[in-house]
Amino acid sequence: MSEATERTRWWGWGDEEGRPRLGPDGAALVRRALELPEVPPPAPPRLEEVELPERGLPAEALERLTGIGGPSGIATDRLARVAHAAGKSYPDLVRLRAGDARTAPDAVLRPRSAHDVAAALHVCAELGIGVVPFGGGTSVVGGVTPEREGYAGVVSIDLAALSGVSDVDRRSRTARIGPGTLGVRAEAELLAHGYTLGHFPQSLELATVGGFVATRSAGQASTGYGRIEERVLGMSCVTPAGPLEVHPTPASAAGPSLRELLVGSEGVLGVITDVTLAVAPVPELRRYEGWSFPSFGDGVEAFHALAQTGTAPDIARLADEEETRLSMGLGSTGSFADRAGQSYLRARGHGRGTLAILGWEGPAREVGRRRTRAHRMLRAAGGVALGGGAGRAWARSRYAAPYLRDELMDMGVLVDTLETATTWSSLPGLHAAVAQAIRATLGARGTPPLVGCHVSHLYPAGASLYFTLLARAEPGAELEQWRAAKRAAGEAIVAHGGTITHHHAVGADHRPWMTAEVGPLGVEALRALKGRLDPNGVMNPGKLLPEPAGAGPA
Amino acid sequence: MSEATERTRWWGWGDEEGRPRLGPDGAALVRRALELPEVPPPAPPRLEEVELPERGLPAEALERLTGIGGPSGIATDRLARVAHAAGKSYPDLVRLRAGDARTAPDAVLRPRSAHDVAAALHVCAELGIGVVPFGGGTSVVGGVTPEREGYAGVVSIDLAALSGVSDVDRRSRTARIGPGTLGVRAEAELLAHGYTLGHFPQSLELATVGGFVATRSAGQASTGYGRIEERVLGMSCVTPAGPLEVHPTPASAAGPSLRELLVGSEGVLGVITDVTLAVAPVPELRRYEGWSFPSFGDGVEAFHALAQTGTAPDIARLADEEETRLSMGLGSTGSFADRAGQSYLRARGHGRGTLAILGWEGPAREVGRRRTRAHRMLRAAGGVALGGGAGRAWARSRYAAPYLRDELMDMGVLVDTLETATTWSSLPGLHAAVAQAIRATLGARGTPPLVGCHVSHLYPAGASLYFTLLARAEPGAELEQWRAAKRAAGEAIVAHGGTITHHHAVGADHRPWMTAEVGPLGVEALRALKGRLDPNGVMNPGKLLPEPAGAGPA
Repeated sequence: MSEATERTRWWGWGDEEGRPRLGPDGAALVRRALELPEVPPPAPPRLEEVELPERGLPAEALERLTGIGGPSGIATDRLARVAHAAGKSYPDLVRLRAGDARTAPDAVLRPRSAHDVAAALHVCAELGIGVVPFGGGTSVVGGVTPEREGYAGVVSIDLAALSGVSDVDRRSRTARIGPGTLGVRAEAELLAHGYTLGHFPQSLELATVGGFVATRSAGQASTGYGRIEERVLGMSCVTPAGPLEVHPTPASAAGPSLRELLVGSEGVLGVITDVTLAVAPVPELRRYEGWSFPSFGDGVEAFHALAQTGTAPDIARLADEEETRLSMGLGSTGSFADRAGQSYLRARGHGRGTLAILGWEGPAREVGRRRTRAHRMLRAAGGVALGGGAGRAWARSRYAAPYLRDELMDMGVLVDTLETATTWSSLPGLHAAVAQAIRATLGARGTPPLVGCHVSHLYPAGASLYFTLLARAEPGAELEQWRAAKRAAGEAIVAHGGTITHHHAVGADHRPWMTAEVGPLGVEALRALKGRLDPNGVMNPGKLLPEPAGAGPA
Repeated sequence: MSEATERTRWWGWGDEEGRPRLGPDGAALVRRALELPEVPPPAPPRLEEVELPERGLPAEALERLTGIGGPSGIATDRLARVAHAAGKSYPDLVRLRAGDARTAPDAVLRPRSAHDVAAALHVCAELGIGVVPFGGGTSVVGGVTPEREGYAGVVSIDLAALSGVSDVDRRSRTARIGPGTLGVRAEAELLAHGYTLGHFPQSLELATVGGFVATRSAGQASTGYGRIEERVLGMSCVTPAGPLEVHPTPASAAGPSLRELLVGSEGVLGVITDVTLAVAPVPELRRYEGWSFPSFGDGVEAFHALAQTGTAPDIARLADEEETRLSMGLGSTGSFADRAGQSYLRARGHGRGTLAILGWEGPAREVGRRRTRAHRMLRAAGGVALGGGAGRAWARSRYAAPYLRDELMDMGVLVDTLETATTWSSLPGLHAAVAQAIRATLGARGTPPLVGCHVSHLYPAGASLYFTLLARAEPGAELEQWRAAKRAAGEAIVAHGGTITHHHAVGADHRPWMTAEVGPLGVEALRALKGRLDPNGVMNPGKLLPEPAGAGPA
């Protein structure tokens, strides 16, 4: 099992020590708002009591896979299997907390090289064993949850050993990074060379670079550094049909983009074994600051203006009214403002306003110049500067939310996030429709939710919307309740011009809307591609592509 | 036949009137350098004497295609067929000038809508008729030259009627543009709304927006505005298997990018019938200027520094020593400096130096700020400012080269351009290797060439190299001579880490290196995709994909 999963909660997020906490005020606020009953937190699930799938790997498969990757190339112990049974979505954690790891793989493979990966895929393809490529296991869309229906068995390929930064090309500002390299580790290694990848998803501590690429991750600073696909120059991918190589090049006109076929392929075509990425100098200055706007609409106007004048910061987040209230209440989820700040805002008539976080990275002089220009536009839109304290508070807790989710779940809270993107024209309608759909659905179930949203990831043509929902969980019906909310949100997104995912990927959970996203023939085109690269249909079953007429291996 | 081709030279470039000319000094310089014999220019080929393919469209095909697109939906007259017989590459023009239009299609279809296109594809797929999507017909890689081997016939689909700008979304800064819209026409229509597409390939006057998208065009200002794929938000494409729809969205994580599959698909998957593109405000100021550097290496250092510090201009071109000499000699090919400028440079010791053109577009204040910062870096690299005159001279002649090619061919000159891109680390080696390969090959044939090159299209990780070659044509063996030079250049590019094309596309001419570019399995993946979307294999035969084992329709 990977370093990433062994030291961390298999049924939740991160290490046991030094965890960010809600704090008593935050917990009280949530209890009050969701009318939660006072219950003691449940005991964590016990590894030895967890239910695993009955059937193991067929003897021939076990025998032929053993030895690939050296003496520790395969693990079938309980911890390894349970730690690879699911990703980190709310439904994943609901199941694991209930002691249900029936999705666990039969074995976990630990290849040391692309050659090992190829050998493993060869065996699995021949024997009809499903293969789940596994980086950090942080998918929130069911992307790494094994599906065994119709397969002789299923294995996870943990890429932890294909790790590390190499071939740093200072002249071209590129570096090769192993797919199993944790985001934090990649940053640490690049820092030694004076570089950053500039890619900071909330999952940075546990997610891997290969995962970023396989899922089209954006990262909190995508407005400045670009999405992961804008930073990938080349890559290697091992498919059951053989190796695919994208030569690192800054740009090419040689046909459809093979690179853009592999980015976002979510393990259904093959295993990414190597990536060459653009890196950037570690910024001289990182300056994060808070701003307040009279209303969400005012803030959107400000962001729209920044995005279309080349004035956008590297990080830009604008909370709507509900997310603002939630953030101000939940100290460590990203408190935008301390008590003093809140009083100041109320004094300025922004007591019911909305909060934004802007982040600037680069040479100090340039940051100064960019901020001066942006501040003029923010003020013109009615913005009030809250200063660096609010920004630093956000930065301190920028990776905290998934830790807090564990605590919220202990309190009996349904907690989920979902995201979309659209053009500036469609943004207000999409924002209202999705929030309304979630509220109506959960309200009708007697569990009225808190639904906050922020605009982030600015583009000249539009932006993303990121929703957070909290509701009193329905004991025993948590999954059904979650599915109802997810379905309502997904349908609203599709009906109002949003993409089904801006950076969480498709996985299993967004499959119902994949046909709406790319059309029936688009799905068929992707299926044809998969048919050629993975003719036996063993790669990451049940992900990305909608359920075909006849599921299971070919 | 399209407006674009009817008013223009079918055997050359552009209209007859107001053509840019070499001028007597330029012509004398070329004559001297290439040791050309003094010959009178050949008479233009006569339409009525041109050789067409013998066989016409089968009667059933003609009957079923007639009526699609209304009364003028199909043309089989000589002019229409000859005007669609080839693109605008050197070998295309060599053949047409020799009266050889044996590649002409049997008919030219003129659909008025996506519906017409679908109807035509249906008939062609059923009857095994090859289909060549045709925009402006300006391909320089054989991308629109019909290939009939193994087909019952071949038609070109001229998209001129699917033209115009619509649905301008001012809030999101996007517009829908018909694929048959000429680049200049799109600019004119957008200008009425205060916008520009920011996409200015040398072929702007004759090429279409659909062609830009189908060939992954870059445009002279790509350093600032981005390549065409960075400006496409959504598109519609009609394939023989049905319609593909890419919903306009600023970004998505929903799997492999369908958009990036259709961009660069060069008509082998289907016909692009609609594109939604990002537009930008017409810049308040367009400021073009010339700079001189002591050597090409010094200039590369300067461009490298600009590209990696966010200081790059919107247009950036740096000629090497040979291209500088050539440009200074050939007045209107983009004369960087007038006589006074040349004297000034010699006085500064730059007599043998290299010349750069920088273009800045945007609000006047911002252009001023950006230029100030860039100028500091250019001077630090040994650059000397030549002022706006040199820039304006370039801007005046930025679309002139293909007109001058006609004149050079009249003089008996082989004239071609080819392009590649690579990382900054590999750039010097690639530059030397390609120039040397062309020189050695043509030198060995007794026709030593002039080989100039410029760096342009800057990226943080690298840049493109654009080569121009001139040599004394071998009468009667022009095609063989050209093929030898092309082969030498292509092999050098592949051997030295370059992409086989940065913005000219693959077409027919770069097919021999497509396997080197994307690997054998990459080719198979593209073939699988084509197999699903174009199961009868009728779309643009002989383009993009390397020769399969068994060519011809399925």
